[in-house]
Amino acid sequence: MKVTNFAPGPTPVPDRVVRKMSAPILTHRSTEFSDLLRQVATGLQHVFRTENDVLVLTASGSGAMEAAVVNLLSPGDRVLAISGGKFGGRWVELCATYGIDALTLDVEWGTAADPDEVDRILGEQGPFEAVLATHSETSTGVLHDVEALGRVARGHGCYLVVDAISGLGANELRTDDWHVDIALTGSQKALMIPPGLAFISVSERAWQRIEESRQPSYYLNLKRARDSFAKGLTPYTPAVSLLMGLDESLRMMKELGLEEIYRIHERNALVTRAGVAALGLNLFARRPSNVLTSVVMPPGIDGSGLLKTIKQECGVTIANGMDHYRGKYIRIAHLGYNVAPSDMIVALSALEHGLSKHGYEFESGAGVAAAERVIRETA
Amino acid sequence: MKVTNFAPGPTPVPDRVVRKMSAPILTHRSTEFSDLLRQVATGLQHVFRTENDVLVLTASGSGAMEAAVVNLLSPGDRVLAISGGKFGGRWVELCATYGIDALTLDVEWGTAADPDEVDRILGEQGPFEAVLATHSETSTGVLHDVEALGRVARGHGCYLVVDAISGLGANELRTDDWHVDIALTGSQKALMIPPGLAFISVSERAWQRIEESRQPSYYLNLKRARDSFAKGLTPYTPAVSLLMGLDESLRMMKELGLEEIYRIHERNALVTRAGVAALGLNLFARRPSNVLTSVVMPPGIDGSGLLKTIKQECGVTIANGMDHYRGKYIRIAHLGYNVAPSDMIVALSALEHGLSKHGYEFESGAGVAAAERVIRETA
Repeated sequence: MKVTNFAPGPTPVPDRVVRKMSAPILTHRSTEFSDLLRQVATGLQHVFRTENDVLVLTASGSGAMEAAVVNLLSPGDRVLAISGGKFGGRWVELCATYGIDALTLDVEWGTAADPDEVDRILGEQGPFEAVLATHSETSTGVLHDVEALGRVARGHGCYLVVDAISGLGANELRTDDWHVDIALTGSQKALMIPPGLAFISVSERAWQRIEESRQPSYYLNLKRARDSFAKGLTPYTPAVSLLMGLDESLRMMKELGLEEIYRIHERNALVTRAGVAALGLNLFARRPSNVLTSVVMPPGIDGSGLLKTIKQECGVTIANGMDHYRGKYIRIAHLGYNVAPSDMIVALSALEHGLSKHGYEFESGAGVAAAERVIRETA
Repeated sequence: MKVTNFAPGPTPVPDRVVRKMSAPILTHRSTEFSDLLRQVATGLQHVFRTENDVLVLTASGSGAMEAAVVNLLSPGDRVLAISGGKFGGRWVELCATYGIDALTLDVEWGTAADPDEVDRILGEQGPFEAVLATHSETSTGVLHDVEALGRVARGHGCYLVVDAISGLGANELRTDDWHVDIALTGSQKALMIPPGLAFISVSERAWQRIEESRQPSYYLNLKRARDSFAKGLTPYTPAVSLLMGLDESLRMMKELGLEEIYRIHERNALVTRAGVAALGLNLFARRPSNVLTSVVMPPGIDGSGLLKTIKQECGVTIANGMDHYRGKYIRIAHLGYNVAPSDMIVALSALEHGLSKHGYEFESGAGVAAAERVIRETA
């Protein structure tokens, strides 16, 4: 059976991008490659909304998170790590691994960090070198207020490091205007190419700090990446075919414009949320990201079983809740701007099928009908 | 103009592999992906000639080299690093970065490490925890005698770590039989998929040592990779499309058989060396690998200028010598088993064109004719 994927990455890759990745592969020590790398970096600056160089790492987004920690921070540095989900928790793990003294702000899953609370902690328990935060928390579907966190962190003289892996290019993120010192993302989310690349932007003031870091790094060393990039190179062999695809993807994003891309994500999110609400279901995220819609399972319905039914009987993949919330909520992604409202109808229809099979009572078709109304109203 | 690439990676990707990588992308948290990962790992065991698990990292080969160092070794450990080229030198850099006390055996570029000398150093200057070596040194085209190094290292109770990035799948390497504790390679060499993945096998005795390592690691942590692999997963998002391609590439390698693949590489190497010799040119490598043929430039001819002419006028990319040997020799790769003898004729003909344009005197066509003779004799 045809499988349609609504997991929050890897997102479906547009045909134009697939064709580019199928072209004969470039050598990474050629002038053609250097031209490609520089062009891609310019396209990334546009998506990151930054004047700073955006560096390319051949790694997953977690590799870029490690790069941020080991390059910016030194053992014994004190930081505030905001953790409201599995991926926020990754900051805490990274700090523990590398001897960074992290105070964890444990935000209840499904909610966003309160910037006033962050402000208070930074003031009362400081000084802190950095705040480690998440833009769109993929495990819960929550969007954090990075703009406010940037104001607060800057007010206390802290660096702000933001994991924008699933959020960048889906929800607004203004790296420079919002005082984000390090922003990072992965290739397989809103940039719509396969996984294998990560991208990281570093502010001028963060570079000064990186110069002083006492933490060793090699493959993920950002100074090496910056020095090589100045020569149109990467320090180690890059994932060339993915960069060829990224070039096309970024070109498409430039053609469409970021505001329009945000609007597409917002519309698909509104369509999905309307469908879910019409089925009498609640959202898990109290400050929902436009990356995905997380849906609380009603009493008596196990999300894991529901998703299995939906996969087997409809060929539709929806993601599960994570860690201790597995089966408690499910996650329907609408990530990448080549997701159309009709795709969300497919997901909602499959959800109705699964709910019906698992004995949940609702008016059949109500979710899809509500979604269709939003599609009409926002057309 | 059409460009034909004779750089030692990325190697040309076979059409069958390109088609697989163009299929709709799998989710890395699906049973389909787990099946793929396990199948790929079995195919990798075949190419590595090992019974041990071969783990997948989303990184370049250099990332796998770092993984070997930071997982196996701890700060203060004493090792012998064999450096006979740029990539052997990477072991030395990695050790310096991570506080490993490395004695460097500087092997003259173009020559291979002498196993007897290694034996002597291990005996006289030990104890050493490990020997860090290279299989095929890509910067010089030299093949090291890993079988002998394995015997020597084991005799002194040292772990043997081998960078087999360009060599594995081109020249024979028997990981288990030759006592290689850690062997590693990259995706874009003899495995013939685009760069972005690295593979690493670890012996049982090395795993015991890894358990005791005091060096922190996160993204490149091998225990995490092993524990995830046991569940059919990777700890971080893997480069899924490359794994899809690898599955096909490994299938093709299994169909053909390793001995036949080695023979193809050897034949193309013989063809190329014969052509070069007939032009009155010398090989740079005194123990040549079948990965590439490095050719010393005759007096008065600058390799960099020659390669520029060949690129511009013939559309043929040949690699330069590296570091202080840039322009002094050139490197013609015959890597990946879908390189045919006719491809080597293209490279040799382009070389003749460039040499002629740069004033080198030789009998026109002599290189190609000699190569054709070897093709006939080995048919």
